[in-house]
Amino acid sequence: MHAARLHEYTEDMSHGLSIDEVERPTATHPNQVVVDVEGAGWCQTDNHIIEGMWTEYVEQDLPMTLGHENAGTVAEVGSAVTLVEPGDPVVCHPVQTCGTCRPCRQGEDMYCENQSFNGLTTDGGFAEYLLTTERAVVPLPDGVDPIDIAPHADAGITAYHAAKKATRRLNPGDIAVVIGVGGLGHIGVQCLDAMSAADIVAVDLKDAALDLAEAGGADHTVNPTESDVPAVLDSFTDGVGAAQVLDFVGADETTGYAPDIVAAGGDHHVIGYGGHVHEPCQALVNGEFSYEGNIVGRYAELQELVALVERGDVELRTERHDLDEINEVAERLEHGEIEGRAVIVPP
Amino acid sequence: MHAARLHEYTEDMSHGLSIDEVERPTATHPNQVVVDVEGAGWCQTDNHIIEGMWTEYVEQDLPMTLGHENAGTVAEVGSAVTLVEPGDPVVCHPVQTCGTCRPCRQGEDMYCENQSFNGLTTDGGFAEYLLTTERAVVPLPDGVDPIDIAPHADAGITAYHAAKKATRRLNPGDIAVVIGVGGLGHIGVQCLDAMSAADIVAVDLKDAALDLAEAGGADHTVNPTESDVPAVLDSFTDGVGAAQVLDFVGADETTGYAPDIVAAGGDHHVIGYGGHVHEPCQALVNGEFSYEGNIVGRYAELQELVALVERGDVELRTERHDLDEINEVAERLEHGEIEGRAVIVPP
Amino acid sequence: MHAARLHEYTEDMSHGLSIDEVERPTATHPNQVVVDVEGAGWCQTDNHIIEGMWTEYVEQDLPMTLGHENAGTVAEVGSAVTLVEPGDPVVCHPVQTCGTCRPCRQGEDMYCENQSFNGLTTDGGFAEYLLTTERAVVPLPDGVDPIDIAPHADAGITAYHAAKKATRRLNPGDIAVVIGVGGLGHIGVQCLDAMSAADIVAVDLKDAALDLAEAGGADHTVNPTESDVPAVLDSFTDGVGAAQVLDFVGADETTGYAPDIVAAGGDHHVIGYGGHVHEPCQALVNGEFSYEGNIVGRYAELQELVALVERGDVELRTERHDLDEINEVAERLEHGEIEGRAVIVPP
Amino acid sequence: MHAARLHEYTEDMSHGLSIDEVERPTATHPNQVVVDVEGAGWCQTDNHIIEGMWTEYVEQDLPMTLGHENAGTVAEVGSAVTLVEPGDPVVCHPVQTCGTCRPCRQGEDMYCENQSFNGLTTDGGFAEYLLTTERAVVPLPDGVDPIDIAPHADAGITAYHAAKKATRRLNPGDIAVVIGVGGLGHIGVQCLDAMSAADIVAVDLKDAALDLAEAGGADHTVNPTESDVPAVLDSFTDGVGAAQVLDFVGADETTGYAPDIVAAGGDHHVIGYGGHVHEPCQALVNGEFSYEGNIVGRYAELQELVALVERGDVELRTERHDLDEINEVAERLEHGEIEGRAVIVPP
Repeated sequence: MHAARLHEYTEDMSHGLSIDEVERPTATHPNQVVVDVEGAGWCQTDNHIIEGMWTEYVEQDLPMTLGHENAGTVAEVGSAVTLVEPGDPVVCHPVQTCGTCRPCRQGEDMYCENQSFNGLTTDGGFAEYLLTTERAVVPLPDGVDPIDIAPHADAGITAYHAAKKATRRLNPGDIAVVIGVGGLGHIGVQCLDAMSAADIVAVDLKDAALDLAEAGGADHTVNPTESDVPAVLDSFTDGVGAAQVLDFVGADETTGYAPDIVAAGGDHHVIGYGGHVHEPCQALVNGEFSYEGNIVGRYAELQELVALVERGDVELRTERHDLDEINEVAERLEHGEIEGRAVIVPP
Repeated sequence: MHAARLHEYTEDMSHGLSIDEVERPTATHPNQVVVDVEGAGWCQTDNHIIEGMWTEYVEQDLPMTLGHENAGTVAEVGSAVTLVEPGDPVVCHPVQTCGTCRPCRQGEDMYCENQSFNGLTTDGGFAEYLLTTERAVVPLPDGVDPIDIAPHADAGITAYHAAKKATRRLNPGDIAVVIGVGGLGHIGVQCLDAMSAADIVAVDLKDAALDLAEAGGADHTVNPTESDVPAVLDSFTDGVGAAQVLDFVGADETTGYAPDIVAAGGDHHVIGYGGHVHEPCQALVNGEFSYEGNIVGRYAELQELVALVERGDVELRTERHDLDEINEVAERLEHGEIEGRAVIVPP
Repeated sequence: MHAARLHEYTEDMSHGLSIDEVERPTATHPNQVVVDVEGAGWCQTDNHIIEGMWTEYVEQDLPMTLGHENAGTVAEVGSAVTLVEPGDPVVCHPVQTCGTCRPCRQGEDMYCENQSFNGLTTDGGFAEYLLTTERAVVPLPDGVDPIDIAPHADAGITAYHAAKKATRRLNPGDIAVVIGVGGLGHIGVQCLDAMSAADIVAVDLKDAALDLAEAGGADHTVNPTESDVPAVLDSFTDGVGAAQVLDFVGADETTGYAPDIVAAGGDHHVIGYGGHVHEPCQALVNGEFSYEGNIVGRYAELQELVALVERGDVELRTERHDLDEINEVAERLEHGEIEGRAVIVPP
Repeated sequence: MHAARLHEYTEDMSHGLSIDEVERPTATHPNQVVVDVEGAGWCQTDNHIIEGMWTEYVEQDLPMTLGHENAGTVAEVGSAVTLVEPGDPVVCHPVQTCGTCRPCRQGEDMYCENQSFNGLTTDGGFAEYLLTTERAVVPLPDGVDPIDIAPHADAGITAYHAAKKATRRLNPGDIAVVIGVGGLGHIGVQCLDAMSAADIVAVDLKDAALDLAEAGGADHTVNPTESDVPAVLDSFTDGVGAAQVLDFVGADETTGYAPDIVAAGGDHHVIGYGGHVHEPCQALVNGEFSYEGNIVGRYAELQELVALVERGDVELRTERHDLDEINEVAERLEHGEIEGRAVIVPP
């Protein structure tokens, strides 16, 4: 089968991956599932992986097929699998978890002590077929198109995960800020809108992104090239600050907003990871706010997000591409030229 | 009356404050309370105030009487005060709050939008008498000595506040780390021990501090001059990390432990503020941990801490000094020569 | 001034209250506020008070002016009041609280140990003027009509309080059931819709009430005279049950649904109090659900509800009546003939 | 092998079970585990099962081997099992769960939609060997005796589960009440003592049980035959009531305490199920308390309880019996003659 694989780390996105002919996987272990991939979202993290930015955090054996946002149809199942059978449409949680370690038993499968991450630590789904496990597939309800839902497998649940944490702490009248309205951010806005009665303020450098935010339910928008973000938020909140901030950029500048824009007792959720957190401890103490790291959402959250999609509460802006356009997609994302999310449709 | 006052910011603790003769305060507003100060704890924050380290965060009019850890006897009350009467022993919460803003109505009085902070933004209690309000005094039960309990008014509730947040997220079998076992840290250890069944690991550069931690209930101790802190914690937790970390130092080095020692989903509570938080966003994302700022505990938490003291669960290591020894105390603290807490006993 | 007062308990709503001429109140204490009443909602609890159903729980001195859902304009303030001044539009929280007891300090003002409840333990607002306190008035934003918002002072915050608790525990894909879509229930439906992405099922004996529920955001409706409620819910949830149930009726029959309709780990919120909870302990143990009592919402929740109204998320169905029609209103409510909420408009 | 089996429901405990010779189970499915049973606790629920009290809630095929509190040594494992191997000492969670339904994925394995419950819906462990699954065994640390820990598999985690919920809501100075200090209750007292700084009040009709409570950490004891329970609690709490009540009896009389003894906002945890909850809804509304059903603790809680045992925080009072004494044990428990917990030691 064809698969888009990384052979060596590079800063040059124009030839990051090569389309190789590799063997189609089969389910040799009782819990395995092979999925015929119909859609595979391209993610900023794919660019970061190509750049070698994850080598410090995880072990990677190259060459490796990238791709962690997949959906498709079950092609084959291991002998002990009961959840799905061949022909079932599924969306693939990107993490294959063991199910027996303590985090797994607590429902915290993202903290699984024996995990594999599609396209990050094991072969992913920019390919015709993906080898995964029963614990990593969510059956799709009727009427949900695998190609449309594919990016939710990572972009979606990451945004949802952060938005869910935030909504538990939001009251009507509070301000929630979304920084960066790209592939993840525009899902985050919609999740906040569906799950809370807070006023949503979207922040982005591009007016097109701000339009996308408004379409998704943002009550206010701010373009930092035109306005001073802390000053605008001060005026919205009488100087109290925003109860929750979802930072989908994670640049030095955006994390630097926190002491000025987060209300006492509030949280600055770090989701994007373009830069650093760098603040005096005294700022955190004085304002009693937190920088809260956010990883990919867990399996049960992917179920919840599928329910949101089925309700029509979250709609993904996508564009579709063939597998051989993959490096072009990477380059366009690098230059901020993709609105919403690009989905690769393997042959 | 005599009061120890700051006239100008200085790095030289040997003559930070001067003992002035000032007018004794009276309760002119219906809600005010005048307290005859019996004990006034000296705090690392007093050193920071003398150095001018708070001018960026709050407005200060010099000269100002410092002192925010006070207890004593009610000397005079305003016409509308019903909670206490002259002669009642009280411990003074350091913050005078309005009671009508939204945070006050939510019980979050530390976020009061109209607050005064004793010895930080208004005259404090290194003096014979302190002017405060009904909302800022907690009556003491029989048998609790005001001099002994005074440092709980800030050191105590700050440590308690962080420990309470941590205990809500700790399970038996988890590891809680306390970094820095000084005036606050040794209270933090005792609070964790009383309120959770986690295993407590204390970290300090001084063996005497580690002995204090063990006396307070620490299960393990680590001296970074002798052992590698992350390696030791890895061995205790099979590489999983500590569920909660209470960092009473807040130096660059101690906040830098977080990515290596905090378990996924855990928190690094920033209580001390000697330095910075400086980490790549990717570290927070990868480990899904948070840096959580911690301010002074609220009024209701001072009530809870008084209950802990009354139960015998928390004991404060103190040494007593006359008001005119105050600069000497500041110097000794600066050089790390005070174990537990110094309490000034005004005449 | 004119006031509608209860002189003796009776089952006969046609002459429950009499319109008396009484002295207009004045603000003699520094914290008091006198409100010129513009709207006063009539509540099922008023019927219960007339019947003497509250004598077992609180002390009542008759005659007493009823009325605990008030809004209007500040007419006079005590010397220490800073939050409002004469002329300000306000909605009146029904409970006058002390502000110094421990529950008040925790933000749990409904548990105030020294409270007075308008129209239940002290004179209420079916009158031209209401005597209350600074802690019990919420300033209204521009554009909110006091007559329209008056019923939110009790009906609204009671429904909001229960809905807020429920939404903290609801995920997308969960079912939330609202039993009884009257004055409170139709607010409950709207709050759930605004603050969660759960599917809402409304249950009522009257089709008009079910229409009101659908207009407010209910996804499904069930009329128990036509369908078996547990069977319908089983079909919606594949036998799992509803994550949260808000029971605005509280009759023997509706609380009896719980073992059959509440999901494991879920809650049956008891808001109405027409009857009893009566179940074997084994049912609670086997299904691990709770019966959770719900009192009036607290002050901060009235602020949040005002924000919801200002956002346009909650709209109250009201009908207006003169003060001298008050017994007729009581009778019509007794016979279930009022849709939404009746508001008395004093002269 | 020998197994104690129920053939028909009876009120007469003297011959409830018969010792049968049955076939020793083997691990035919890849996830199964066979445990050589060393200890099997006898539980009040066993008496209830014999009486037929569970037939309304679950399906039972008689004859069935009872026994849901087991520990022992792994004898055989299925082909896919990785967590344990033959020879490993384990304690057996009583519920065999599927691992793929939504509750299992959320860590709520007690709500598993495809569960079997040892000795309740499938053969249990009053036998030489028990057939269970990988997901239902917790490896034991060195030094923990399987016979001693066996009763924790149900009695222990049920008490722990309720105590854990309670401790999350308890502050220093609060009162926690434990009603019924038998097999479960004496564990509940120890868990509360280890995990909170609340004052514990134990209530029991037998002075020996109250002594056991004091040994476990109770601060006060009340014998209802000598004192009026609500009056005593009123005196301890200045009329405020207990923040949390753990009712290990669940009789009509003990659930009837709630309106009088539970503080506003507090919970009456229903763990025992000897009788009914029967209260007017108005009582729940007026006091805003809940009746909260409590089921057996989940797998991760059994891990936490093992940690508590290993720390020495929880000690079980046990007495040991041979398998052929089993009906005698049932009778003695029925007459309240067993202090702590009886453990059957199969041959």
